[in-house]
Amino acid sequence: MFREKIKVLDCTIRDGGLINNHDFDMRFVREVYKAVSEAGVDYMEIGYKNSKKLFSPKEYGKWKFCEDDDLHKIIEGIESNTKLSVMVDVDRVDVEDVSPAKNSPVKMIRVATYVKDIDKAIYLVNHFADKGYETTVNIMAISKALDNELNECLHQLEKECAAQAVYIVDSYGALYQETTEFLIKKAKDILKSKEVGIHAHNNQQLAFGNTIEAIIHDANYLDATVFGLGRAAGNCPLELLLGFLKNPKFDIRPILDLISNEFIPLREKIEWGYIIPYAITGILDEHPRAAMALRGSDKKENYREFYESLIGADEE
Amino acid sequence: MFREKIKVLDCTIRDGGLINNHDFDMRFVREVYKAVSEAGVDYMEIGYKNSKKLFSPKEYGKWKFCEDDDLHKIIEGIESNTKLSVMVDVDRVDVEDVSPAKNSPVKMIRVATYVKDIDKAIYLVNHFADKGYETTVNIMAISKALDNELNECLHQLEKECAAQAVYIVDSYGALYQETTEFLIKKAKDILKSKEVGIHAHNNQQLAFGNTIEAIIHDANYLDATVFGLGRAAGNCPLELLLGFLKNPKFDIRPILDLISNEFIPLREKIEWGYIIPYAITGILDEHPRAAMALRGSDKKENYREFYESLIGADEE
Repeated sequence: MFREKIKVLDCTIRDGGLINNHDFDMRFVREVYKAVSEAGVDYMEIGYKNSKKLFSPKEYGKWKFCEDDDLHKIIEGIESNTKLSVMVDVDRVDVEDVSPAKNSPVKMIRVATYVKDIDKAIYLVNHFADKGYETTVNIMAISKALDNELNECLHQLEKECAAQAVYIVDSYGALYQETTEFLIKKAKDILKSKEVGIHAHNNQQLAFGNTIEAIIHDANYLDATVFGLGRAAGNCPLELLLGFLKNPKFDIRPILDLISNEFIPLREKIEWGYIIPYAITGILDEHPRAAMALRGSDKKENYREFYESLIGADEE
Repeated sequence: MFREKIKVLDCTIRDGGLINNHDFDMRFVREVYKAVSEAGVDYMEIGYKNSKKLFSPKEYGKWKFCEDDDLHKIIEGIESNTKLSVMVDVDRVDVEDVSPAKNSPVKMIRVATYVKDIDKAIYLVNHFADKGYETTVNIMAISKALDNELNECLHQLEKECAAQAVYIVDSYGALYQETTEFLIKKAKDILKSKEVGIHAHNNQQLAFGNTIEAIIHDANYLDATVFGLGRAAGNCPLELLLGFLKNPKFDIRPILDLISNEFIPLREKIEWGYIIPYAITGILDEHPRAAMALRGSDKKENYREFYESLIGADEE
């Protein structure tokens, strides 16, 4: 029953790093790497490759920069077939920081972009592909993309870009199944030479459901995170995805242990998941930043006022 | 864009009562009734109509019995177009306890049944319909129903039963979208004279997604609960469902207030929601009772051992 082409990418540390400024300690990251390796997960994304000229290592943890030396310390001594991935944001990377793939523990680089920056993203992807990396393009804020611009973007990717896969990224957790189906079908239709992926956010408890919807319509690159960890409402829970996929190479048990031992205690320290202000920004198709600000304030449970502040905003 | 025929039923107090032996106090239930009334919800189900010969009022709260006098105290002085519903289990009701609809604050009676008890359910429904109630049949544990028996059951309902709607009940939170689609289409196909409904459980964070899937395939009776309250993993969150439906008669704001004021404090006292042992029973298509026992023990976070105990069970 399983589809061999499906690749699962764990981005627990990368997306979770958006909550704590990429400051997970080495021991924790190694525990995650060990568990996803034992579980048979195809890729693990640890963080971003950001320029230290733009961001200070005093303000951010190691996984904002993902230097090869630090990554070596993560994988050292752990048996694994899981490939390491890092993410790059358009305009935030110094390509000189990225060594040729043959000298790096990183196997894949994913370029995150908005539709409007697609030319820059293609330049970066082709540069990293030339250096020997596997590459993908992750189109963020897809729920806000205008249909004609998205079409043009996808055609350009098919023609000019070396990426092996293109992801639909539901940054705002705003997609329902019907829109997911529409977008995945469109991408599959245009991107004849590439795989299609999905990265879903869980604002409306639909991250897993939308991932299944994407699978039904032939998306083969699937992002998930342990216990759904990730910014704001978090992501598609890896344990649910592994429970759904029938490929015998996956084993859910190391992930269950990891949640018991590491993620239940972690949840006492940082907040993510189904929280009403994030549900509201998902319903309204908005960036979660206003909700994140609310959660840091003494009005954190004032849902009605928050909702009314968003729907009352004058947009004319 | 909205579908006028859709009816939303709030079963917060009824399904939530399975956590606390139906012992919500009068003030709390009135707050819920007030909020769902203001929100424009079509029905509110408060509890079960169980025989006091079988269950002792010393062990259970009021909403295990739903006497008309108690229901009058809930609705008194609150302006509302929301109709009250009670649930009845096959073999647990004394039909003599149910007065004619014209003398009762209850407008709808829903009969919960397994496929095997469908003859008894039909008898009860027709009896209550004769007494003047709106009626439904709720087929529980649908993920375990054998296809030929379910077909026969649905044909019998279409031919012999007065119920206005038949619900697919995913008691174990085991359904994915494709099976939901299959079951709703089958029910719609056979039940030409009735509406079809869905009651989903949230073990795998799919209660809302499966409810949307059911809506896509023309289910019009939708169960939900405030903040997803309900036994074990809980149910489809009412606030998400109202956010999705486009019918202008619904207003999400009273539900947001209710969560702020009543459900955030309640969550400190009783447990429900996305909890790994419930996810495991959902993945394995099992009743949550073993997971509920685990959560009451000192092994509550031992997920791997729990998982292995379930997959190791000898079923030959």
